[in-house]
Amino acid sequence: MTQTLTIRRPDDWHLHLRDGDMLRSVLPHTATHFARAIIMPNLVPPVVTGAQAAAYRDRILAALPEGADFTPLMTLYLTEDTDPADVAAAHASGLIHAVKLYPAGATTNSASGVADFARVAPVLDKMAEIGLPLCTHGEVTDATVDIFDREAVFIDRVLDPIRKAHPALRVIMEHITTAEAAAYVQSAPEGLAATITTHHLVINRNHILAGGIKPHYYCLPVAKRETHRLALRAAATSGDARFFLGTDSAPHTDANKLLPCGCAGCFTAPNTMSILAEVFEQDGALDKLEGFTSLNGPAFYGLPANEGTLTLVRETPEFPTHIDTPDGPVTVFDPAMPLHWTA
Amino acid sequence: MTQTLTIRRPDDWHLHLRDGDMLRSVLPHTATHFARAIIMPNLVPPVVTGAQAAAYRDRILAALPEGADFTPLMTLYLTEDTDPADVAAAHASGLIHAVKLYPAGATTNSASGVADFARVAPVLDKMAEIGLPLCTHGEVTDATVDIFDREAVFIDRVLDPIRKAHPALRVIMEHITTAEAAAYVQSAPEGLAATITTHHLVINRNHILAGGIKPHYYCLPVAKRETHRLALRAAATSGDARFFLGTDSAPHTDANKLLPCGCAGCFTAPNTMSILAEVFEQDGALDKLEGFTSLNGPAFYGLPANEGTLTLVRETPEFPTHIDTPDGPVTVFDPAMPLHWTA
Repeated sequence: MTQTLTIRRPDDWHLHLRDGDMLRSVLPHTATHFARAIIMPNLVPPVVTGAQAAAYRDRILAALPEGADFTPLMTLYLTEDTDPADVAAAHASGLIHAVKLYPAGATTNSASGVADFARVAPVLDKMAEIGLPLCTHGEVTDATVDIFDREAVFIDRVLDPIRKAHPALRVIMEHITTAEAAAYVQSAPEGLAATITTHHLVINRNHILAGGIKPHYYCLPVAKRETHRLALRAAATSGDARFFLGTDSAPHTDANKLLPCGCAGCFTAPNTMSILAEVFEQDGALDKLEGFTSLNGPAFYGLPANEGTLTLVRETPEFPTHIDTPDGPVTVFDPAMPLHWTA
Repeated sequence: MTQTLTIRRPDDWHLHLRDGDMLRSVLPHTATHFARAIIMPNLVPPVVTGAQAAAYRDRILAALPEGADFTPLMTLYLTEDTDPADVAAAHASGLIHAVKLYPAGATTNSASGVADFARVAPVLDKMAEIGLPLCTHGEVTDATVDIFDREAVFIDRVLDPIRKAHPALRVIMEHITTAEAAAYVQSAPEGLAATITTHHLVINRNHILAGGIKPHYYCLPVAKRETHRLALRAAATSGDARFFLGTDSAPHTDANKLLPCGCAGCFTAPNTMSILAEVFEQDGALDKLEGFTSLNGPAFYGLPANEGTLTLVRETPEFPTHIDTPDGPVTVFDPAMPLHWTA
């Protein structure tokens, strides 16, 4: 039985770091294992210009623990007023690596997102021209669409039309949760990829709603039924280079989770690598873990894989139930199964 | 436009009153509008014998405000050890009006429920013989069944076999949430009915999960997608005598709702009649309200309709967001729509 597993140092292709005290509290948990991360721009107010992204990058770098080896890969929050020239300049300087599309109102801090997709066509044209990927939060916000259908409907109503209108645009479907999304990625020979979170490989909607309501398992897109979880597992552990890790790790304090209208997000930065090793081993695919965490993402983004390595050891890991922050405790995602790998 | 609506005084055919301080806090809210209620027996420990039901009835009567006109209709909690002779005696004395089947583990305080349905066959035979109805919490507890499928699967796996084995048994499917359950009731010419809650006529699962997680909208069986809500509305407002009101009003303190594993239940006792008038008027069925709240239930239970009346007036009602209890505040169900009838 394998006792140690050494892989190229992983990256997290979808991460929420927030700002200020919360940034300082959570960043070390990511920097311990991950060399790079795509930093989501949904601050309040959102990061919409190159200048804002540069300032945010500086704040992240200033918050790094001494000696940490971590590079934030910045993104811009796409709005109907985003300037294609500003996007191109931020990309040309090496500052930004993607632009994030939030349908207006879809999730945490998405009020500034896109309602009229025609208005962002010039930006998407420019991105296609310069090879800058679009990351999508793939849910429609139409209140009449069932919450569990919103990802599949987004593909039909929004994403597929965008890809047909901008065939050279590179797209990453973020935190996919459905068999439909996995199949849509598998149907595209190139230019389309998906991130999958840690928690969506582990929980289905029963974890949120059976035997009591469990806000700490609530995120958006919300976990779907078991058949979808299994489709995500199959995609992640298949070795298919179009799928890679994006934790969507999102720190909300317990006070903000356990509200009459609780926040969406799971905080998985501390234990993601232990959980993923467990998941891939359960599926007989430990040899595919490195591709998912360390190779497929950089390949799609046109970046080199990391030079350094991370070694996992077959030892029962220990994680706190929560981390303390100046804003209050943040609960660490509970995978609801024993873990056997320490990163 | 109708300005007042006078109906026979309504009954609530599914109510949780709890005990002690909570009982004293919530009972007046039901007794204000309802003449009778089927009292659910899932206390801790549950009400499993006739003697326990008699003692619980006495505690309820002692908790009534002076001058209140309210009759609790007691039930027994079915366990694998329930004695058919005790059930028959409690029924013969006029004490109990139904026996409640909880699949073990299905909902709040259901740990003593039934796991092996063959073991309760002698009780069901006796109930069929004496005409005592069985109320069912219609969800399987198999962890591999999706939470949104558990009611439909219960019909196939549990209820339909029980009804075939005990064809004379009268059954009430409690708090139905699916089109499948409504259709199952509609398929039976006699001996089968269903209660429908106030909240399931108003919310679908988007209310719980879209734009934040809302524990105050969480109950079991959980609200399903919109198509099911519309099927329940159609059944409730159709005038079909097989459907009647069971609020399932269940007081949990806010502290017990806003937990990492929050309790299931909505507290609708104070505003149910205003909400129902709104719902029936929206569906052009104000003339069917009395049947749903005041006539269909007694007819199925073999009881006379109430002699007294309740008059609703077209005035904007005012309800508190919560009621105070010695155990803490209990949030009143928010129908998320303007109401226009005061009861």
